[in-house]
Amino acid sequence: MEGKEEDVRLGANKFSERQPIGTTAQTDKDYNEPLVNFGLLQPPPAPLFEHGELYSWSFWRAGIAEFVATFLFLFITVLTVMGVNRAPSKCASVGIQGIAWAFGGMIFALVYCTAGISGGHINPAVTFGLLLARKLSLTRAIFYMVMQCLGAICGAGVVKGFQPSRYEVLGGGANVVNHGYTKGDGLGAEIVGTFVLVYTVFSATDAKRNARDSHVPILAPLPIGFAVFLVHLATIPITGTGINPARSLGAAIIYNRDHAWNDHWIFWVGPFIGAALAALYHQIVIRAIPFKSRA
Amino acid sequence: MEGKEEDVRLGANKFSERQPIGTTAQTDKDYNEPLVNFGLLQPPPAPLFEHGELYSWSFWRAGIAEFVATFLFLFITVLTVMGVNRAPSKCASVGIQGIAWAFGGMIFALVYCTAGISGGHINPAVTFGLLLARKLSLTRAIFYMVMQCLGAICGAGVVKGFQPSRYEVLGGGANVVNHGYTKGDGLGAEIVGTFVLVYTVFSATDAKRNARDSHVPILAPLPIGFAVFLVHLATIPITGTGINPARSLGAAIIYNRDHAWNDHWIFWVGPFIGAALAALYHQIVIRAIPFKSRA
Amino acid sequence: MEGKEEDVRLGANKFSERQPIGTTAQTDKDYNEPLVNFGLLQPPPAPLFEHGELYSWSFWRAGIAEFVATFLFLFITVLTVMGVNRAPSKCASVGIQGIAWAFGGMIFALVYCTAGISGGHINPAVTFGLLLARKLSLTRAIFYMVMQCLGAICGAGVVKGFQPSRYEVLGGGANVVNHGYTKGDGLGAEIVGTFVLVYTVFSATDAKRNARDSHVPILAPLPIGFAVFLVHLATIPITGTGINPARSLGAAIIYNRDHAWNDHWIFWVGPFIGAALAALYHQIVIRAIPFKSRA
Amino acid sequence: MEGKEEDVRLGANKFSERQPIGTTAQTDKDYNEPLVNFGLLQPPPAPLFEHGELYSWSFWRAGIAEFVATFLFLFITVLTVMGVNRAPSKCASVGIQGIAWAFGGMIFALVYCTAGISGGHINPAVTFGLLLARKLSLTRAIFYMVMQCLGAICGAGVVKGFQPSRYEVLGGGANVVNHGYTKGDGLGAEIVGTFVLVYTVFSATDAKRNARDSHVPILAPLPIGFAVFLVHLATIPITGTGINPARSLGAAIIYNRDHAWNDHWIFWVGPFIGAALAALYHQIVIRAIPFKSRA
Repeated sequence: MEGKEEDVRLGANKFSERQPIGTTAQTDKDYNEPLVNFGLLQPPPAPLFEHGELYSWSFWRAGIAEFVATFLFLFITVLTVMGVNRAPSKCASVGIQGIAWAFGGMIFALVYCTAGISGGHINPAVTFGLLLARKLSLTRAIFYMVMQCLGAICGAGVVKGFQPSRYEVLGGGANVVNHGYTKGDGLGAEIVGTFVLVYTVFSATDAKRNARDSHVPILAPLPIGFAVFLVHLATIPITGTGINPARSLGAAIIYNRDHAWNDHWIFWVGPFIGAALAALYHQIVIRAIPFKSRA
Repeated sequence: MEGKEEDVRLGANKFSERQPIGTTAQTDKDYNEPLVNFGLLQPPPAPLFEHGELYSWSFWRAGIAEFVATFLFLFITVLTVMGVNRAPSKCASVGIQGIAWAFGGMIFALVYCTAGISGGHINPAVTFGLLLARKLSLTRAIFYMVMQCLGAICGAGVVKGFQPSRYEVLGGGANVVNHGYTKGDGLGAEIVGTFVLVYTVFSATDAKRNARDSHVPILAPLPIGFAVFLVHLATIPITGTGINPARSLGAAIIYNRDHAWNDHWIFWVGPFIGAALAALYHQIVIRAIPFKSRA
Repeated sequence: MEGKEEDVRLGANKFSERQPIGTTAQTDKDYNEPLVNFGLLQPPPAPLFEHGELYSWSFWRAGIAEFVATFLFLFITVLTVMGVNRAPSKCASVGIQGIAWAFGGMIFALVYCTAGISGGHINPAVTFGLLLARKLSLTRAIFYMVMQCLGAICGAGVVKGFQPSRYEVLGGGANVVNHGYTKGDGLGAEIVGTFVLVYTVFSATDAKRNARDSHVPILAPLPIGFAVFLVHLATIPITGTGINPARSLGAAIIYNRDHAWNDHWIFWVGPFIGAALAALYHQIVIRAIPFKSRA
Repeated sequence: MEGKEEDVRLGANKFSERQPIGTTAQTDKDYNEPLVNFGLLQPPPAPLFEHGELYSWSFWRAGIAEFVATFLFLFITVLTVMGVNRAPSKCASVGIQGIAWAFGGMIFALVYCTAGISGGHINPAVTFGLLLARKLSLTRAIFYMVMQCLGAICGAGVVKGFQPSRYEVLGGGANVVNHGYTKGDGLGAEIVGTFVLVYTVFSATDAKRNARDSHVPILAPLPIGFAVFLVHLATIPITGTGINPARSLGAAIIYNRDHAWNDHWIFWVGPFIGAALAALYHQIVIRAIPFKSRA
């Protein structure tokens, strides 16, 4: 009665009861969703619009989870950046490397926490890449992106609330192309950096490999978090590292200075191009999906 | 005879023999306890008072394990803080980042070591959050908190024993709201920081997700340790990071200076509010428990 | 129909259709390849030349995956080195330790991502060690090494493209024997360093141990990445750490200064000797393969 | 024929053939040894002397593996210490934190690599603790300790070979009680530090918990490595951190200065007391073995 399987089936039943009649297939999808997001099932391409989704509690819950996760992500990371910038010397702080750990570590922890609820995107570029691979519907992708951006704005806003005056002085964690680099450098760094992240996401959630190498999926959130950490190690000197448009938008809106807005397009265009290239590379080269017939 | 299953059953039988007649159900609970603490079974809400518990060796052993774990936690972390503070420059020490690793890493190792014995709380805020979710009895929660606080006091005391004079000069690892921040900032940082930790604990030990995503529970102690590490990266500049009332109390009692006691309430009120919010978020939004009927 | 096993079999069938008739055995090999690379099956020694391989998409795809992985490896790591070298002080950068994390972390993430596609070598020394143990054909080994070197050259080239003038000034991440050490020191450091890496690779992919200790293979990419990280901690002061001839070649070609070329042989001879010693140690001492009859 | 199970049985048969008649039970022990070392089987207490062991290849191979692992451990860690000490400032090196990573990371990687061959002790204190718990024979324990010490001496010796003159100046990684601490402080730090390590080893290899919490053993080498890392973070300022008599002996013999020898007893007595306390705590409090009858 209180056994593991029982509990799960119970939960699934409860949820389906909350959905209107006629969406029984929806129930199964709801139940299988984390498997699909993590690629354990190779789903048919997600439809662009799925009307039933809007009536599912799990849809709204997923959006809330993305909001909360992105809120916590910005809160911890921007606060870490502030702490490093206000220290008399970098040595008396956690340092630039500590900033990289904050970004990568939070993605690890948050992907771990939200993978079963929303798929654990926490990043519009990841959502965009998975949308291109038809792993989620357009409705859901847009909903996620909106919630991610709102969460990021709130997270950065709370950090500013702690120290309104210093926040402005210390840059507010906003992404800009640093002195000594061109806008092209910044764009290139964002493209390759996001490629590394989204390529890792695709690899970690690939259906075929999961089936063959049972050791691969177990660590999924860890390499994804490490990918974020590594890109920060490399590209903080260039742009402060975006590779996450919600993170860049949240910091820019709360910081709200001209020079942050001038470069802001880079942190949307770059990540989206990088995510698209990673999706292409994975679907065409690694999975060779266009060359397979679907029976 | 000496095989794996045999050994376990043998152990369980031995323990049950040490319990008074009439508490057979207790034996099962004892055996299932780690599963329950890690959420592999969805238990009925724990009763507030469970008389039989007091006659179970596993109950007292769990308290001893919490004491020893919190003792080791304070010993290693406060000693690391002392080492950083006494160095001629932060660069000649493991640095602030090293302090964050000490706190997060110890939680990772100790949760790993004590998860099967006591559930691996090592933190009254975690115990409080799990109590609100009715994952353990009130008796056990209070016992754990007392043992955690005693362990923390002893751990900090041993560190002071190494260098009594310097301990006072170097701050003793006590939590205070640092210059440049208000008490409200400190309270806010503690609330959100503890939310991050307890939210991760709930996610890592969630019954429903464990059943659906087999890759999730395997790494449980790792994201919990990382959550602690990350909160330290962000909030050491503000309060030195509490998010664990036993750790704050132990350091404050051994340090015992006025300005540490003045702020001390923050390191109880903040973590308990954060833990309560995380419990609410997980039970209401993620699990939607109030909206489910229990058959 | 969309279930896990079905998907995999579907994929395997598709691939086999793309191969000429008469290479049915090849299909099985293709399917088993990751298991073999990770040692889950003890294969017969790979033939030196395997004609059928050249007609297999998975062969070419594996080479592309090695190219892309080595490209990303050099891009992230050399960019991190540049960022550290151009900072006004090491403290204002991710530091030498951050460089070590970049190398080790990228190997962790990339082995994780490409293990199922190409075996995840990303290093001619690893390919050479596995070739000596007859884990892959000579054809495949040479193909991998060429693709790794091409990827490395492109990765370093893109980094130079960001800042052509500074690249020269800052050393371009090229490996040289540092002042205060002899060429013999550098060679010794490369030999032992590569031994650590390739020994870890063999241990992580050992067929016999995988069968006995089910906990061992699950973390395979993590200790491999850590081995790279640790060797960098120890030998960056001596040579900048090669232990990967493709990485050394890519940086040397793009940097293209005499003193980098003078020492360059060390970064091929050292890693190949180290890999050979590790293969010998594992096959002779640990596995005692020469003393076993093969039925 | 080349399948997984076949391979393993083949290997076991081969080995047993190399043993004299009458030691058939030995064969089983040989086969089960890693399980026993990792606690997956609760073995009967190991006999103090086991004559047959000396005729088993796996016994000698285990000793070789301990030698090689301790050699690599000292090589990487002492070289890292040298690199930090010779840098013009700690900032221009991997820093004290990098030293802690080198020690902890090597233990992680080496325990991972040698767990299936020798149990992965790499430390006489760990061997001593497991001997007290009767997890291995006295013969084997002494053999391991001798091989560990020889490996450590060779590892430190090779590092000295790189830079004989500087080695002396820079302290050679030898453990001494640092200025500002008493010998009692040093002894206490070694005792508690080794307790943390050996307690983690016992927890990670506990038969009863492995059976109950399937998520626990999978990460065994990771928390063990982290424990070493954490103790280094805390106690490097006091003694340079021993918690491993072979590491202390190897560095002391190669360094060979009076003040290193004066304190040397601390790095044997401290770790052995700490290991004994951890064994007592685990066997008496956690496992309550004295109170169980053995049928």
